[in-house]
Amino acid sequence: MGKSAELICVGTELLLGDILNSNAQYLAQELAGLGIPHFFQTVVGDNPSRIQQVVAMACERSGLILFTGGLGPTPDDLTIETLADFFDAPLVERPEIVADIEAKFTSRGRVMTPSNRKQALLPKGAEVLPNRTGTAPGIIWEPRPGLLIMTFPGVPSEMKAMWQETSVPYLKTHGWVQDTIVSRMVRCWGIGESGMAERVSEYLNLSNPTVAPYASHGEAKLRISAKAPTIAEAVALIHPVEQGIRNLLGIDCYGADDESLASVVGDLLQQKQQTVAVAESCTGGGLGQMFTAVAGSSAYFLGGIIAYDNRIKTNLLKVDPTVLATEGAVSAIVAEHMALGVKAALQTDWALSITGIAGPGGGSETKPVGLVYIGLALPTGDVISQKYEFAHFRGRDWVRHLSACTALDLLRRHLL
Amino acid sequence: MGKSAELICVGTELLLGDILNSNAQYLAQELAGLGIPHFFQTVVGDNPSRIQQVVAMACERSGLILFTGGLGPTPDDLTIETLADFFDAPLVERPEIVADIEAKFTSRGRVMTPSNRKQALLPKGAEVLPNRTGTAPGIIWEPRPGLLIMTFPGVPSEMKAMWQETSVPYLKTHGWVQDTIVSRMVRCWGIGESGMAERVSEYLNLSNPTVAPYASHGEAKLRISAKAPTIAEAVALIHPVEQGIRNLLGIDCYGADDESLASVVGDLLQQKQQTVAVAESCTGGGLGQMFTAVAGSSAYFLGGIIAYDNRIKTNLLKVDPTVLATEGAVSAIVAEHMALGVKAALQTDWALSITGIAGPGGGSETKPVGLVYIGLALPTGDVISQKYEFAHFRGRDWVRHLSACTALDLLRRHLL
Repeated sequence: MGKSAELICVGTELLLGDILNSNAQYLAQELAGLGIPHFFQTVVGDNPSRIQQVVAMACERSGLILFTGGLGPTPDDLTIETLADFFDAPLVERPEIVADIEAKFTSRGRVMTPSNRKQALLPKGAEVLPNRTGTAPGIIWEPRPGLLIMTFPGVPSEMKAMWQETSVPYLKTHGWVQDTIVSRMVRCWGIGESGMAERVSEYLNLSNPTVAPYASHGEAKLRISAKAPTIAEAVALIHPVEQGIRNLLGIDCYGADDESLASVVGDLLQQKQQTVAVAESCTGGGLGQMFTAVAGSSAYFLGGIIAYDNRIKTNLLKVDPTVLATEGAVSAIVAEHMALGVKAALQTDWALSITGIAGPGGGSETKPVGLVYIGLALPTGDVISQKYEFAHFRGRDWVRHLSACTALDLLRRHLL
Repeated sequence: MGKSAELICVGTELLLGDILNSNAQYLAQELAGLGIPHFFQTVVGDNPSRIQQVVAMACERSGLILFTGGLGPTPDDLTIETLADFFDAPLVERPEIVADIEAKFTSRGRVMTPSNRKQALLPKGAEVLPNRTGTAPGIIWEPRPGLLIMTFPGVPSEMKAMWQETSVPYLKTHGWVQDTIVSRMVRCWGIGESGMAERVSEYLNLSNPTVAPYASHGEAKLRISAKAPTIAEAVALIHPVEQGIRNLLGIDCYGADDESLASVVGDLLQQKQQTVAVAESCTGGGLGQMFTAVAGSSAYFLGGIIAYDNRIKTNLLKVDPTVLATEGAVSAIVAEHMALGVKAALQTDWALSITGIAGPGGGSETKPVGLVYIGLALPTGDVISQKYEFAHFRGRDWVRHLSACTALDLLRRHLL
């Protein structure tokens, strides 16, 4: 059994995909934060024999089993009955719960239905896990020595309130919480997950803190997780490892945790008290959206020009029409003209431009889908551009997303 | 074993609650749609012995096991090795996969790292489940009679593409799918889920097709699902129901399936051979990004001006500085000036503008966070504006997203 937890989510609606199992993520985060190890999650339908099958397996390997769902008043809500049956405990009606449910119905100007009375039937010996906001109470039950069971409704708001108000204090006062786990996500741009992992390979086999690589949306990440009696001690374990990792990753590491490329670039611009504008073709506003996703970005982001049509490139960004005709809209020189054009029009210190072929159409032999030029106009008056070929096979959204992120990263590297 | 499926999601990040298990919901919906029964989902960490424990249980009770996660290049990606070990199958390097991975690295201007070579090692006898968009291939494997295994990466976009392109056709041609289920999602904007449900209540109790209401990202949706021996018969069942529902919903129903507000507006503009431009303040480019997310939008979307700073509103959009000073940037008159200003600057038939307070800061008694004005300049030369108060407590991203969608819907209703 031991002191590890396991999660069992009961509900046919989960197996049909009608709802997303956000309860599992919430309880997983909470268990991690409390330092309670958690190795298995199971989703099972509203079926007594399958629920019993899952419970039988769970109590062989875990000392704490958390259930969500199946506490409602309808006939297909079977969690409590099935547990009582499995552990041979009779169901006993709790008058205080009947009273509580009646009071809740009255307060909403309704009369308690007979079916709700079912929710007052709890296994003999189980403590009530009160549900302040809903009618379905949970239980805290030790049906056999070394096995603790807690049940919660499937409604996230009720489950979370019950967890915070009763379960967490109970676990803390019953010896379940020794260590705390603190995690930190170190974020990289411009390298792949495997390349990043190889550069920090010496850290990947640590036991405390642990270091694990991830990748998503073109970004490579490392999660550092430390376990210690206090948050301060866990943070102290993480700090030197993060420093060592950042030294190995250098400029390819742009931030950690909630930082984004846009927020990091924003911080750098604010430190320098400089401003930026954008000129966007294939991203159509996506770069501006990233800049302004950061609260307070008005301090350094003035705005931009979405020049999707070539007429806008010439009329508003002053791209030379002959250059546009000879080189084509997707070219280094046009990217540079766009950056200079928007910098002049908005009178900023920096300006970024993006012109490319997002696809699926519009590609050619010489200019395939995924070809993107990013321009950067500098405070000095200079302008540069970079050529990229993003993976066209990952689709239009991918090319546009990587274009905007890569533009932010290009500015970041120049600000450093 | 039988013909039921089961889902095993591998990844310590799921047990730590770092990510929401949206893959489980997607595959659950897909299995339900194919009529393949599905009774268990398990989440397990990147740990060989625990993965084997779960696999041992799963192949006792299910005939089809779908795995997500643990296919990456790093040492903690163990799904394939663990399966090969469990079923005593040697791992064999597949040269075609090595070549494919190398090509994908080259296309992103990178060199394949040795660790990626690991992804080309598959169990002897397993078929490759190709991953068009990522480097990690899956497998389709019958390690013993009556047991079919499919593995997918944890990255949702890769998993979904592999499922649709290879797994679904495979299951259909291998006797897993009897009846076909065809679903159609009818999409609404401007009404809530409950209001929509009440208007179509007469359809909500049908058995075939079934009609189920959903809501997400401010949009209300109805899924119509029909079961029949052939796709044509299922479509024939859906058609009259969809027509009846559309008649009841009227203009609040904007489209179905893959249609978006932006694609529907784009189709209407193309029919009229008219063009549009945007002037964005609080959305910072998000509206332009929605327009240009539609391939071919260059036919009607010319571009826009991101006027995040008031100087851009006056200099580029010709908003009257005295009006800006007296009324404030977030006002009906400024929204109207912005729309007229960008229409004149880009010479389009229509123009949309958005100015509002996305928060979390910047709100006041008279102008709270969530207050948004949307302007629309018409081909006639007229201009209108609408005032909205979006739920500030749902956060900055929510206010920005609803602002852009509502602007698209305002134009849609005027185009009809």
